[in-house]
Amino acid sequence: MDLHGGNIYRVKRERGEEVLDYSSNIAPFKLPNSIKEIVVENFDKLERYPDIDYIELREAIAKYNGCDIENVVVGNGATEILFLYMKSIKANKVLIVAPTFAEYERAVKLSGKEVSFFKYQEGYELDIERLIESIGENEVVVICNPNNPTGKFQSLEKLERLADFLERTGKKLFVDEAFIEFINDWRDKTSALLKRENIFILRALTKFYAMPGIRLGYGISYDMELLKEIKDKREPWSVNIIAELIGKNIIFDKEYIECVENWIEIEKRWFYKELLKIDGMIPIETETNFILIELKERKAKDIQSLMLEKGVLIRDASNFKFLTENYIRLAIKDRESNERAIKSLKEVLM
Amino acid sequence: MDLHGGNIYRVKRERGEEVLDYSSNIAPFKLPNSIKEIVVENFDKLERYPDIDYIELREAIAKYNGCDIENVVVGNGATEILFLYMKSIKANKVLIVAPTFAEYERAVKLSGKEVSFFKYQEGYELDIERLIESIGENEVVVICNPNNPTGKFQSLEKLERLADFLERTGKKLFVDEAFIEFINDWRDKTSALLKRENIFILRALTKFYAMPGIRLGYGISYDMELLKEIKDKREPWSVNIIAELIGKNIIFDKEYIECVENWIEIEKRWFYKELLKIDGMIPIETETNFILIELKERKAKDIQSLMLEKGVLIRDASNFKFLTENYIRLAIKDRESNERAIKSLKEVLM
Repeated sequence: MDLHGGNIYRVKRERGEEVLDYSSNIAPFKLPNSIKEIVVENFDKLERYPDIDYIELREAIAKYNGCDIENVVVGNGATEILFLYMKSIKANKVLIVAPTFAEYERAVKLSGKEVSFFKYQEGYELDIERLIESIGENEVVVICNPNNPTGKFQSLEKLERLADFLERTGKKLFVDEAFIEFINDWRDKTSALLKRENIFILRALTKFYAMPGIRLGYGISYDMELLKEIKDKREPWSVNIIAELIGKNIIFDKEYIECVENWIEIEKRWFYKELLKIDGMIPIETETNFILIELKERKAKDIQSLMLEKGVLIRDASNFKFLTENYIRLAIKDRESNERAIKSLKEVLM
Repeated sequence: MDLHGGNIYRVKRERGEEVLDYSSNIAPFKLPNSIKEIVVENFDKLERYPDIDYIELREAIAKYNGCDIENVVVGNGATEILFLYMKSIKANKVLIVAPTFAEYERAVKLSGKEVSFFKYQEGYELDIERLIESIGENEVVVICNPNNPTGKFQSLEKLERLADFLERTGKKLFVDEAFIEFINDWRDKTSALLKRENIFILRALTKFYAMPGIRLGYGISYDMELLKEIKDKREPWSVNIIAELIGKNIIFDKEYIECVENWIEIEKRWFYKELLKIDGMIPIETETNFILIELKERKAKDIQSLMLEKGVLIRDASNFKFLTENYIRLAIKDRESNERAIKSLKEVLM
């Protein structure tokens, strides 16, 4: 089984045809034509190295987030920043709130650190006091917010309470906000507002800005020592010039942003309501652009195979820590695709 | 001083104008229009993740090199592969043949290994028997071939002799062939021909294929255990989709390849001959697309400043191990630019 969703290439190689990809959580919008034009106009820049300091890109990201350029570190996808963070922090024990994205565990282990897990409570809610009691010797807490694969979002108040507690003992909080732009009024809810030295924010342009192919992620931090450590460890020129070009422009494309915001607001509710109508499954109400579903009796891998026969690739979520063989995850896409996915699910399950 | 050449961005920020970049060693050709068209046609693929296994790209690279797909590992520039190699090998001591590219030392140190250096002989030639005698407890030898910054190329016979010796004691050879395509008849001279388990070949599309902005490098290895180790350690989707698209096409673009081969054959001789005519410097005869120059009296940093005033950015090579403050490195570019660089050098030195 794949560690990640989205292996549409293997599926295509094996089946010889395209499928509808519900396994990776990307906004279902084309990049605006304005962006395409920027790439074509700047094609000759491929023949240059990127700016090793990424000044313009980091300035744009700082402006987008209301922080300073020195608080921004960019990477070849959020993954590079995650791995650099884990390699750079002075800590031996890391606590991951799970079920969640599998790469945190890989990054912790590959950096030679010890990993343990804290399980979300009933309904995938987070009891922050119970988490605090469980920290023990752990020096860093990792939380994905909104969380992949559960779709739940934890309030700023909860995370501030957690960061406060951690700060008193010189410990750190790592918040992956790769999906935060799908949350309504996210600018009032991001942990970046706290501007705290012990909070590191991870972001990706992969999801909301629908450019996983082009690879661009970044981190926001107020810990200058840690940022220096990351800088010393990073490989030069890791962000390619197209990512740099697209990235610094698309985050200010109001039309694109409004379009995605309007879509998710409506579509996540519609999709959830439609899923509720299907017998044999319990959809977990989501605040973001994907949804976790518990199958009452059927196995995820069977449903995945049956859906694939109908041309829809879904994520078998049973390899997420603390989930069982009865969990699947679906992206939320455009209405037409969603109708097709719902129809297929009905046929397969009912 | 910068660890690398090519910081045209900082120069532009500081001077407010473009310069002629002789500090990074990129072929001075535009990417073919056919490649531009491929990118435009495939623009929508940016909205997908790259193939996590990079099957098509690795197949193309295997074909280009006459090896099998399982011998090829791709990376976000050659740098990613270099760092992964150093992290993945079971060795504690690494010997680097120097003066050479600074990232080898960084990669060795960041992987927690010990580094030592073996100095090229007179005229930057390599006495392979002396190198063999110096290996001692070192378990890996790193050699850049052709070597940056000296422009010298070591024969396949020498490297085979070295690999033979290393093999007898279970040791490894790492050959960076980032610039090998600039060598006349390189296909008969690459260490990849040896297909040996203890030789790892590093390649880049950055230089010959003039796409440093887009980031693509790869490794060729016959050590299946090491390749598995690298695979286990690598970050997913590190090669972006544009690099994948361009990469798998440009390496078969005969017209582009012939054009670059014809240019370097003529231009490296012309450039060297013209440099010989300038008093106050000793150019080191090169076999590739850049040239190291010893200044008889003047300091590299002074000449670099004076050249910059004339709008030409050159590489102050004095921070290369074993070089002094009297060394500069120049890329070789198109004739018109080369004439301008030669003219500026004359004015500055004579």
